[in-house]
Amino acid sequence: MLPRIVDGASRVLGIVGDPIAQVRSPPLWSALFRHNGMNAICVPFHIFAPALPAFVDGLRGVENLIGLLVTIPHKTAAARIADELTPRARKIGTSNLLRPIPDRKWEGDNLDGLGFTRALAAAGQRIAGRRALVVGAGGVGSAIAFALAEEGAAHVAIFDVDADRAGDLSRRIETDGGVGSSVVPPKAAGFDLVVNATPLGMKPGDNMPIDLTGLAPGSLVGDVVISETPTPLLRAAQTLGCHVQPGAATTDHQVAAMAEFLGLSGGDWSVAAIQAALA
Amino acid sequence: MLPRIVDGASRVLGIVGDPIAQVRSPPLWSALFRHNGMNAICVPFHIFAPALPAFVDGLRGVENLIGLLVTIPHKTAAARIADELTPRARKIGTSNLLRPIPDRKWEGDNLDGLGFTRALAAAGQRIAGRRALVVGAGGVGSAIAFALAEEGAAHVAIFDVDADRAGDLSRRIETDGGVGSSVVPPKAAGFDLVVNATPLGMKPGDNMPIDLTGLAPGSLVGDVVISETPTPLLRAAQTLGCHVQPGAATTDHQVAAMAEFLGLSGGDWSVAAIQAALA
Repeated sequence: MLPRIVDGASRVLGIVGDPIAQVRSPPLWSALFRHNGMNAICVPFHIFAPALPAFVDGLRGVENLIGLLVTIPHKTAAARIADELTPRARKIGTSNLLRPIPDRKWEGDNLDGLGFTRALAAAGQRIAGRRALVVGAGGVGSAIAFALAEEGAAHVAIFDVDADRAGDLSRRIETDGGVGSSVVPPKAAGFDLVVNATPLGMKPGDNMPIDLTGLAPGSLVGDVVISETPTPLLRAAQTLGCHVQPGAATTDHQVAAMAEFLGLSGGDWSVAAIQAALA
Repeated sequence: MLPRIVDGASRVLGIVGDPIAQVRSPPLWSALFRHNGMNAICVPFHIFAPALPAFVDGLRGVENLIGLLVTIPHKTAAARIADELTPRARKIGTSNLLRPIPDRKWEGDNLDGLGFTRALAAAGQRIAGRRALVVGAGGVGSAIAFALAEEGAAHVAIFDVDADRAGDLSRRIETDGGVGSSVVPPKAAGFDLVVNATPLGMKPGDNMPIDLTGLAPGSLVGDVVISETPTPLLRAAQTLGCHVQPGAATTDHQVAAMAEFLGLSGGDWSVAAIQAALA
């Protein structure tokens, strides 16, 4: 009798990143597979950027691969490597998920933005009509900015330390997202939905990513940083009487959409199922 | 609190094969890692032969990879792909284990033969001076034939349905193994150590791989086929009063040598530890 953590018949969902030790997906997905009675496991792969293309190419031949989750700093490269992209991923320009499609090809999607907006919706928060500020124009920031545009935000302003990158995303939000946009400093005054999509807050002693001065109570403040306790940004926002959304919410609320994209039929991939699986 | 089956910091030991569902290594090694307090997991990869080179190349960039176990039908290809081979693997011409070495290279070894002879030694059985018959001249048969030669068998005869392959191994046993060899039919009469190194016995209704007529009591009969219950060959050998060695013994008795080759320092990788870990 062998324990059933993993056996020769297990299917594999990979996740690539650098660093990788902090990612929640391996225990989360592995527990969820077990909860749903699926023999599958989520496995971390620590890959430096130059090694990504060969690694992803090599995985094309793995018959028992469910797909590949992609995290920092590989989301832009993953979109380039993918043979096909969903319209959403093409617009965003990055991919946080690859699935195998016929002829040993990869199709990329990006569900970070959907996870962010679904989490707000699940908390009963409205996005339509709000003036949003997204700080950080990288993979996850781009995804969230486009998702906010899609959900009817009145304006989606962008800040990034790299002004070119901020300007590029802002222009694309206007042309491809169909919503007014601007490049602004990282100051919350004048907005009622602000999002930190930078790594600031991951490490003790990090600077605050956004100046919350002047933010009205009842505003929404989201953070993509995943941590056991609320980040300094979210603690400050709570003090101001804002609705706060931690990074794990974005992850958890895109799991069901990822399961669908990966063709995992049957099973319960809801946030309630995640909580039950991890309990 | 996340369950500790696997997390972002887990190291990965892969195993490639086709088929793969039947392999014992994922639960065995995963349980053993846990038993030894190591955050690591053994993951199955189902790969068809044409996809192996790209897959193995892609794994060169995985920072948290411990190594790659190789099973049927990839052992010959793995030896070709490896940048370096141990003297043992070079002699055998196949590899059942690859480890990462500096400069993103792979070094291959083959420990199947050592596992087979160590298991016999652990059971108090003598190899030196015996007349051995190895049926099946593929990867595992070659490894066992060379290991029997190394342990002082008086003669190592070979059978394979592919006469060329049998002849080639037999010649290499004489030249590189330094022991007398011959190509013979799969009949045990005249031998006192016979080994099935073919897949026969895996499936119900398989033919007997070796005709045991005339085999003397006290002879040794080994099988590389791994099954929950003794294979028909081993049941017949037991009836004749022979010492029998099931396929799992070869796997289990090479684990410690594999752990050493993979640089897994500390921990207990003995057969007793495997039994405790799987209990």
